[in-house]
Amino acid sequence: MRATVMYGAHDVRVEDVPDAQLIEPTDALVRVTRACICGSDLWPYNAMAPSAIGNRMGHEFIGVVESIGADVGNVKKGDLVVAPFAWSDGTCEFCRQGLQTSCLHGGWWGGTTLDGGQGEAVRVPQADGTLVALPVGPDHALMPSLLTLSDVMGTGHHAALRANVRPGKIAAVVGDGAVGLCGVIAARRLGAEQIIMLGRHADRIALAQRFGATDVVSERGDAAIERVRELTGGLGAHSVLECVGHGESMRTAVSIARAGGAVGRVGVPQETTIPNAQPTFYANITIAGGPAPVRAYMHELLPDVMEGRNEPGLVFDRTTSIDGVPDGYRANEREAIKVMIQF
Amino acid sequence: MRATVMYGAHDVRVEDVPDAQLIEPTDALVRVTRACICGSDLWPYNAMAPSAIGNRMGHEFIGVVESIGADVGNVKKGDLVVAPFAWSDGTCEFCRQGLQTSCLHGGWWGGTTLDGGQGEAVRVPQADGTLVALPVGPDHALMPSLLTLSDVMGTGHHAALRANVRPGKIAAVVGDGAVGLCGVIAARRLGAEQIIMLGRHADRIALAQRFGATDVVSERGDAAIERVRELTGGLGAHSVLECVGHGESMRTAVSIARAGGAVGRVGVPQETTIPNAQPTFYANITIAGGPAPVRAYMHELLPDVMEGRNEPGLVFDRTTSIDGVPDGYRANEREAIKVMIQF
Repeated sequence: MRATVMYGAHDVRVEDVPDAQLIEPTDALVRVTRACICGSDLWPYNAMAPSAIGNRMGHEFIGVVESIGADVGNVKKGDLVVAPFAWSDGTCEFCRQGLQTSCLHGGWWGGTTLDGGQGEAVRVPQADGTLVALPVGPDHALMPSLLTLSDVMGTGHHAALRANVRPGKIAAVVGDGAVGLCGVIAARRLGAEQIIMLGRHADRIALAQRFGATDVVSERGDAAIERVRELTGGLGAHSVLECVGHGESMRTAVSIARAGGAVGRVGVPQETTIPNAQPTFYANITIAGGPAPVRAYMHELLPDVMEGRNEPGLVFDRTTSIDGVPDGYRANEREAIKVMIQF
Repeated sequence: MRATVMYGAHDVRVEDVPDAQLIEPTDALVRVTRACICGSDLWPYNAMAPSAIGNRMGHEFIGVVESIGADVGNVKKGDLVVAPFAWSDGTCEFCRQGLQTSCLHGGWWGGTTLDGGQGEAVRVPQADGTLVALPVGPDHALMPSLLTLSDVMGTGHHAALRANVRPGKIAAVVGDGAVGLCGVIAARRLGAEQIIMLGRHADRIALAQRFGATDVVSERGDAAIERVRELTGGLGAHSVLECVGHGESMRTAVSIARAGGAVGRVGVPQETTIPNAQPTFYANITIAGGPAPVRAYMHELLPDVMEGRNEPGLVFDRTTSIDGVPDGYRANEREAIKVMIQF
């Protein structure tokens, strides 16, 4: 089968790899119909050390169950399923509390030992805990939005939850990538009255406004902080969604939260420390977040997608075939918001 | 009147200063009956740059209202009152949500412009929002425990709340000072089933156990982290109360929290960044806390003190007169847990 393998920075190839197949009785074999490239794929794309064997890539996908192991009972052959960006058993202490990204028997797609979503098929470990069947066929018009449930929509929702977004309050979103844009949807969905998008790309800003952003701050650094203060009566936002992960974006995020507020961080941190330990302390600002347990959110987010109230699929502004994935990485790094892969 | 003034590191003097007096119509004048020395007083005691005018000291006190301004209605002459370690108007946006330490019209005791608690009398700004009348006389046997409501008991409670202590769960307390010891009381009060005290002073450990600590970890650094893991089935504590503020104690705190857990920090941070940005992210650990809005907690904590269920006053193991305050600082830095000042 064909699959995406990253061999180092800016070295992504689509190659013939061994066919995915069932190994454990808890596995399902899924034929991928849609996948995508993630902002977090760009971290290794820019920095991965050269590797002779390479890493299989992709952690967001929808596909059709082709076969299941003997112990799988929640999905069956022929089901269209969406996979969260982490697989999980659904039964451990952490899964039961809705933190599937810390599953004691789970893990991450791709790498050197597992299939990735940016390939024709995937062996899905712990299929019962991992996969969620969708109530539509693989060519349904909502496929782009449904695909976002595998990561970016659930991740934006996680940022909003951890930032404690509340009805009538002020949310600020740092980062106008696909996750930040979904963060706007999530903040609006949870009732935020004022939603401030910090970003500077015209196309993304327009989408943020369509999703519900009420204010846009295109300044950076101290000027951005100043502008948010102006927009919030001098006090800052109750909730800040950090959707980038850079040191500078985190500094901005903790600086625009008001006293007693919260920062929900979902951008993978690129620095080893969290800035502003003292100002955040004196202002009792909560810093929370991490990899989103999107598996826990799928059933909650699905109805708004199915009924068209939320359209997170609009973050996909480019579609490619599997062979176009290397070009897709280049595009995702530059002009595209998010690239969908159609099989 | 006599009051404590700090002129630099290890230079604390008790001097004659101008008598405290009413200035604003919202002021009360309080004759101090009990005060104390705080762990946070030791930060300037060890590091303050020399000052010609000095800083008035003390932010925890109980006293008798001697007179009130024309706009004061909640306390009256003769009331015995306890003051929180920050004064606040009780009406601003932050006070109304219970975050009095961020009061828009409040502030901190002492310094160069206000009286401090380690003196014979205090002008209390915003008296209606700040002071709470006590239902006893100034010589009541519970005075030490009531005095802890001005800071350490409320601060321990804040750490426990921000660390999300829940019935039946595991709490760990980093630091065996007066705040950490009160954190044990607070964790037990909120229903924690297992309470792990990290500390190494025999007398404090004994008190922690009396207060409800179920386990003691006297190791430091990686060995402490390892020991807490052993005591928690390998997973760490649900709730960690950081009651020191050193970089090393914060590193320990974030390292012993389990995935999805929370660290409530109340030790004044001595470093400018929060460590372990990446491990705490991957484990979805929440970092919260700051200066405790003890004013918000007084009414909640008072009954357990009045009825003897909680005895936070046991943290005072030394009493001095006002003239003994300089010696009290020396003691508080070394052998004493906490020093009370009796007027």
